[in-house]
Parts: sequence; C-alpha cells; structure tokens
Amino acid sequence: MNTNLNPEIIDQLEAIVGASFLFLDEETRRNYGHDETEDYNFPPSVVLKPGTAQEIASIMRIANQYEIPVTPIGGRTGLSGGALSIHQGIGLSMDRFNKIIHIDEQNLQVMVEPGVITQVLRETVAEKGLFYPPDPSSQGSCFIGGNVAENAGGARAVKYGVTKDYVLNLEVVLPNGEIIWTGANTLKNSTGYNLTQLMVGSEGTLGIITKIVMKLLPANQYNILMLVPFFNAGQACEAVAKIFKAGIVPSALEFMERDAIDWTARYVDVSLDIKDAVQAHLLIEVDGNYPDVLFSEAEKITQVLEAFEIDEILFADTEDQKNALWKLRRAVGEAVKSNSIYKEEDTVVPRYELPTLLNGIKTIGAKYGFKSVCYGHAGDGNLHVNIVKGDMSDEAWKTEVPKGIREIFELTVGLKGTLSGEHGIGYVQKNYMDIAFDPTQLQLMKGIKQIFDPKGILNPGKVLPDHL
Amino acid sequence: MNTNLNPEIIDQLEAIVGASFLFLDEETRRNYGHDETEDYNFPPSVVLKPGTAQEIASIMRIANQYEIPVTPIGGRTGLSGGALSIHQGIGLSMDRFNKIIHIDEQNLQVMVEPGVITQVLRETVAEKGLFYPPDPSSQGSCFIGGNVAENAGGARAVKYGVTKDYVLNLEVVLPNGEIIWTGANTLKNSTGYNLTQLMVGSEGTLGIITKIVMKLLPANQYNILMLVPFFNAGQACEAVAKIFKAGIVPSALEFMERDAIDWTARYVDVSLDIKDAVQAHLLIEVDGNYPDVLFSEAEKITQVLEAFEIDEILFADTEDQKNALWKLRRAVGEAVKSNSIYKEEDTVVPRYELPTLLNGIKTIGAKYGFKSVCYGHAGDGNLHVNIVKGDMSDEAWKTEVPKGIREIFELTVGLKGTLSGEHGIGYVQKNYMDIAFDPTQLQLMKGIKQIFDPKGILNPGKVLPDHL
Repeated sequence: MNTNLNPEIIDQLEAIVGASFLFLDEETRRNYGHDETEDYNFPPSVVLKPGTAQEIASIMRIANQYEIPVTPIGGRTGLSGGALSIHQGIGLSMDRFNKIIHIDEQNLQVMVEPGVITQVLRETVAEKGLFYPPDPSSQGSCFIGGNVAENAGGARAVKYGVTKDYVLNLEVVLPNGEIIWTGANTLKNSTGYNLTQLMVGSEGTLGIITKIVMKLLPANQYNILMLVPFFNAGQACEAVAKIFKAGIVPSALEFMERDAIDWTARYVDVSLDIKDAVQAHLLIEVDGNYPDVLFSEAEKITQVLEAFEIDEILFADTEDQKNALWKLRRAVGEAVKSNSIYKEEDTVVPRYELPTLLNGIKTIGAKYGFKSVCYGHAGDGNLHVNIVKGDMSDEAWKTEVPKGIREIFELTVGLKGTLSGEHGIGYVQKNYMDIAFDPTQLQLMKGIKQIFDPKGILNPGKVLPDHL
Repeated sequence: MNTNLNPEIIDQLEAIVGASFLFLDEETRRNYGHDETEDYNFPPSVVLKPGTAQEIASIMRIANQYEIPVTPIGGRTGLSGGALSIHQGIGLSMDRFNKIIHIDEQNLQVMVEPGVITQVLRETVAEKGLFYPPDPSSQGSCFIGGNVAENAGGARAVKYGVTKDYVLNLEVVLPNGEIIWTGANTLKNSTGYNLTQLMVGSEGTLGIITKIVMKLLPANQYNILMLVPFFNAGQACEAVAKIFKAGIVPSALEFMERDAIDWTARYVDVSLDIKDAVQAHLLIEVDGNYPDVLFSEAEKITQVLEAFEIDEILFADTEDQKNALWKLRRAVGEAVKSNSIYKEEDTVVPRYELPTLLNGIKTIGAKYGFKSVCYGHAGDGNLHVNIVKGDMSDEAWKTEVPKGIREIFELTVGLKGTLSGEHGIGYVQKNYMDIAFDPTQLQLMKGIKQIFDPKGILNPGKVLPDHL
C-alpha cells in the first residue's frame, strides 16, 4: 500500500473536499489518530472531512488508483481500535455527517447520517414520543455510524436488542467509489442476501456508511430502577438467569464488581454507603407504560433476589437518583482507565454461564499475575473485563497478559460464547480470532472482504488475523 | 453441471445414506419435486434422506467431485420455489433432521434440527413456559430450517420480529463438505462478519443448515383478539399506521380483503355474518401478562378505529373463537389456491404506504386485466398479492401478468419497499431482482455466492437473476 501521499495526490484530495477540510498538521493528525483503545495513537498521513457521499466516492476512487489505505473515523470512542490508522494513509473523519435527515413519525423510522451523536439521536426522537433503544455507555460522544459499524449494544440491549436490530437500510460507499443502498426501508425483507446485516458490525472494512435508516419504537413512559448489593459476586451472576427464569425481561440488568463501583463513585463524585462485605452490585431496570405492572415486576424481582445473600435494595426514587446511578454505571470504563493502564475485553457467553466465566477470569488472573475489574451487561451475558496494569512490570504486561487473555477467550468460547459482544474485534483482538473460528470460517470472511475490497485499501489490518 | 447420475455415483450415494434412504422411483421424485409455488414440479434425479451432518458432508464431497446440483428440501411449503430441483440432480430431503436437541431453560435458548415442524417447536417450548414467536401461516407443516432459509415471518412478526431475530448460531455444511458453526450461542455478537445473518434468508444457496440455536422468550399468558370490518379497504390500511402512532404495538395486525375472507370462510367452513358493504377486515391481537393492560390497549385501539368507517367489532371471547379466526386467516393462501391457478407476490413497504400500494395494485390489475386478492401482515407493511387466473386466457396469463407484476414491484420499490417480505426470491421472483438492486449490489451477491459455492452446485438457479 501507498502511504507516501505526494503533493499531487494531496492536491487531488483537496480539490474534492476543499482546503478547509483537509488537514496535514500533526496536531489534527494525532487528534484523529486515537480512539479509546488503551493508549494507542496511529496518526493518518492526512485527515479529510468530506461532507457528502459523492465526495467520499471521489476520495475512494483516488485511493483505489494509488492504493492508499483509508480508515473511517467516527466519534473515536471505540474500544477495539477499529478507527486507528495503523497503516497511515487517509483518515476519513465523518464529523460533518451530522444531520438527522428525517424522522418519519408515520412509519416509526428515522434516516440519519452516521456522524450524529447517539444521545442526540435518542433525545431528538424522544421529543416526538419515539424511542431509539440502543444506549452504549459512550452515547454522549459516540457516533451512530460507529455504533452500526461495531454493532454496539448498551444497557437496554437485554430487552430491546442491539444496533443491528434497528438498522433497516444503509447507504454505503464501496471501496471502489460506487454508492449503493443495501436493502429497503421495511421491517421485513427476504430479498437476496442480507447486505445490510453483513455491513452492520463489519467495522468499516467493507464500505463507508453514509446514511442509516433505522426503526424506532413508541416511547415508554415509566421505569423503575434498583441497585442491589450482593455479598457474593458469583451469586449476583447467578441471580441474573433466575430473574429471566421468573418470566421477567428487565430493560436493563447490569453487573458491577465492587472495585468498579468504588473506583467510579470516587471518579464521578457520587457518594454511596456500601458495606465492606459487599462484593458486587446489580443495577436493574424495568420499563413500560403501566406503573402498576412495573411495581408488580419489581416485586417479582425482589422475590427472586430473596434467595441470595444481599444487602438492602436501593430504589431510585427521583429522576436525579436515576441519573446518578446511570452516570455511575456509564463512567466505569473511564474510571478504571483513569486509575491505570488497562486492556478491556468484551467477553460474552450465554447468561447462565456468567458465574463460571467470572470465576474463571479470576483464576486465570491469579495464574498470570494480573488484576481484573469486571462489569457489564449481565442480562446479555456480556461481561467487560478490565485488566489493569497497576504495578505489574512492563515485561509481564507484554508477555503474560496476552497469554491470560487468550485463556480467558478460550474459556469464553468453551462456554459457547465469543470474543466480543459489542466492542468489535478491530485492531486489538484480531489475533485472537482463531479461538472463535476455524480456518474455514476465517477464509469465508476473508473471501467476503475481497469481494467488497479487492485491493484491501479500506481499514486494512482490522478484524481478520494477520496470518490470514 | 452433471445431471447424469450414473450407477457408480448412485452406489457411492447409497453407501453414504443407506439403501432405504435413497429414492429413484418417480413417485418419490415427483413428491419431492414441488413446494407450494404455483403448480410447479421439478423432480430431482434422486432423492436422498441423510440423517446426519456428516452424511450431508459426504454427499457434498461427491456432488463437488462430479459437479452435481444439490437442492435442499424442507417442508415443501415454500412460495417462491426455493426447494424446486430445477436443474435435477440430488434432492436433499431434511425430513430426518427432526429432533429438538435441547431446550435450555436456563438461557432461554433451544437447539433444534432444521426438519422440525415450526408448530411442533412452538408447542414444545410452550410446554416449558417459553415462547418462540415466529408463526408463518404454514406453521403446521413447514420446517424450521426452511423458515431460517427464507427468513420467514408470520403474524406475530409485527411485535416480535422475524426468524432472523431469533437465530443465534447455525451449524452449516458448506458446498465443499466442510462443517462450520457460523457464530456463538450469545444474544450479542460483534466478532467478525455476521455469517449467521448472511446464512439466514440465503434460501439454501450458501450452505445446508443442520443445527439451529435460537433464542426464546418467556411466554405471555393473555391476549385479546378482535376482527374489525371496514367499509373501505383503503381506510383499513390507513388505520394500521394510526394504531402504532397511538403508541400501541399489537402482537398481530392482519389485513384481509373481502374476497380473501369470503373465499376462506367457505373453504374452512367458518360462518361469519358480514354486511355486503364491508370491503376488508383487520384482525388485531394484543398480548401480555396483565389482563388490565390488554383491556386498556384494546380500548385505545377501538378509539383509534372510531375515526374510520367500520362495522361492529367482533371480539373473540373464547379460545375456540380465537382459533377459528386464526384458522381463517392462515387458510387464506390455500383457499385462494383452491379457487384458481394463481401467482402469489409478497410485497413489503413501510406500513404507512400500504393504502398507496393497495390502490396501485388494483390500478395495475385493471390495466393488465387480472384480478388480485390481497391480504397479509399489514402491521409490517407486508401485503400478499394473490393474482388469480380465473377465466383469463393462457396467453394473457403468460404475457400480460408478468408485465403487471413488474409494475407492482416497481411501485413497491418506489415506495421504499422491496420484492419479498418473508417468502424469499427463490425461483419465481429472481428475474425481478433488477428492480430492487442495481448491477453493483447484484454483483456483490454473486461474489458472495461464489465464495461459498465456487462450483455453483448448491441450489443453482435461485435468488440471483439468470442474466448475472
């Protein structure tokens, strides 16, 4: 690939986006050279901020001609390094694709550009009584296009599904510069291979998403939120499956280890009075339009919880209390990060296997000498494992931790789970893909990549392992 | 391709499945040469009934060696001809894959073989208080594997989604005989390209599904079902979007034209007292665990309906009445078929466009001289259009009707809809694919097909247009 962008190429790119949307200075390049993955920074050779799909198509034609790597860059909140320009080349910022094009109240759909911040989208449709459920913890700064690219989840996925369940149709610029729609604006579709779902979660390696048509739901009016302290972390995990078994589908069911909540409470300056013996918390929400039903469901949940060793349940009485608890949960990642260098894994298993997974992670950590802070979307079986460096030696961090991560993933896959529930594979997990897939599946994926991107210029070095 | 299966090849196939599961007689071949698509019969050269994925793998290795077409055959209820052996060769019956392998009550999942009848699956999990929502009208005889292959829907899709929304992981025999799993048994998955969703709806052209892991929901205990007669068919379609706009998500919202209900009532011998001026019906269901909530939702729906010209609403008071109404709805397809030679289209649009679609279909029918009977899943915008031959000349049926169908699909796509909501493209719609997709998308689909099936032996002549 060509990372030597000579002045002639730069001139051609400038002619497409205009001088004010092409950046060669180091500050901008570094600024677009990172996401939230560890402490990586891979500045692209040039940052472009196109404004239309046609401009991106023109950029891709030049990239094709000169075989220049192109890395799409969204809100830079990714946790798997999908937006890092690891082969330099063009960093394609989607910042200017920030319009909600049309909220279709008749069909309960929205057409949105990929650079809209997820929370802005959620709040804007909420003003019309509509509900876009997926709410990744980074919703205040992540882009909806990045959510589609990584098939992001969030706390409400347990009841409402993940991003893929809301994407109906995508406008995509292919690596060769052609612009397509992947499907139709319909709730059902059995018309040819599902290019829409193939694009969702493909981490910007098959095409550049320029418009997204999503389905919406009517908004729910009420919810009840409760924080449940457990004296035994394994029991907190066990309780999760029991709640579903009782016929309840909560709108959120989040797990936080003691360290996660302690570190975060300090980080966001929320005061919680937690007994020393408490090992973990579940944050449980039910939602709907009928308060009586919610009280009844909350009552059923507390009955389930009575079988476990728990301290007093905190019910959030006011909107402020609810917001404080959610702020706490959403800040866990940042809080852990502020404490130490870290690696974050995104394990996911069938939810009943959570206690086994948690226990196994701690055993593996002890074996390789690392500490982990675990939290995440327990209702989905999706456990984020933050491995903190703390006072580990650089040597051990580089050699022992990857062995431990490999064992964690082997355990996860052995439990019928997989490497990533919602963060994607990107740059940092790609060389663990052989744990989840045989060479046969990986070759199929490589074949698909080559169909879309025969020259391998779009987001190279992501998703698929290096050896492939 | 090789359709001359000489005795040596037959011997090799017999050595795999055993003599009692290989059929060369005409009766069996004709019996496996049709589905429910028009009056087609394309007998395979040989019918095989393998019992294991390993046997299918061995069959595929032979098919590969001799380039023999292989057509997977499920419950033969398909409406797009996906299971027709149009190039002869091996008809691969999945009849013996009829086991529900494991109902995982802890994780609310089921592992099932593809030859299990959908209704059997639904009833078996229901005995454990679990709910598998997709319920195609053919549920009494269709196979769950065929549902996955076609991404089948049904009446409950409007609230609960279609088959794809329940498929977590698939065991698949590839055309070259390799056996893979496509994903993991998890509710969330952002690990590589979504091979699972690529396989769903690929109509048996990319691989042969041999095991399916699906998610389940806790069962709902109550429902209310009402039949609403409209004096104006267009208004019935308009009412659909209004119900959602009012914040209600019914568990079924079905539309039936007058002819559909009249013909079917005679066909299944249900007596309904319908005024002459009634043009259409909506069948509306709400479900949940709280009767008071359901009464409240039914009340809201009737308030919405007051704005339209309707006759008295019939509420089904007993299980028997409910079953009678559902029997009526499910038998519409068969009833129309029993009346005349027909072609069934499976148009789908954003639901607010339904009145425009219905009106357009009637105008196009008048132009080309055919009658249509329309019904379907109005809540999803999915309208089945049964074009009946009646006393049309054979000449007009062959020349004029395809022109009319093309215009109907052009209208559908113009309304941001597409060719098929839940029946698939298969054999009969493939040459309309150019209406929904440009050559670019079709070439991507062809490329994907070639990655999975480089020799083009698996279910050849389906999904992709002939010219490609």
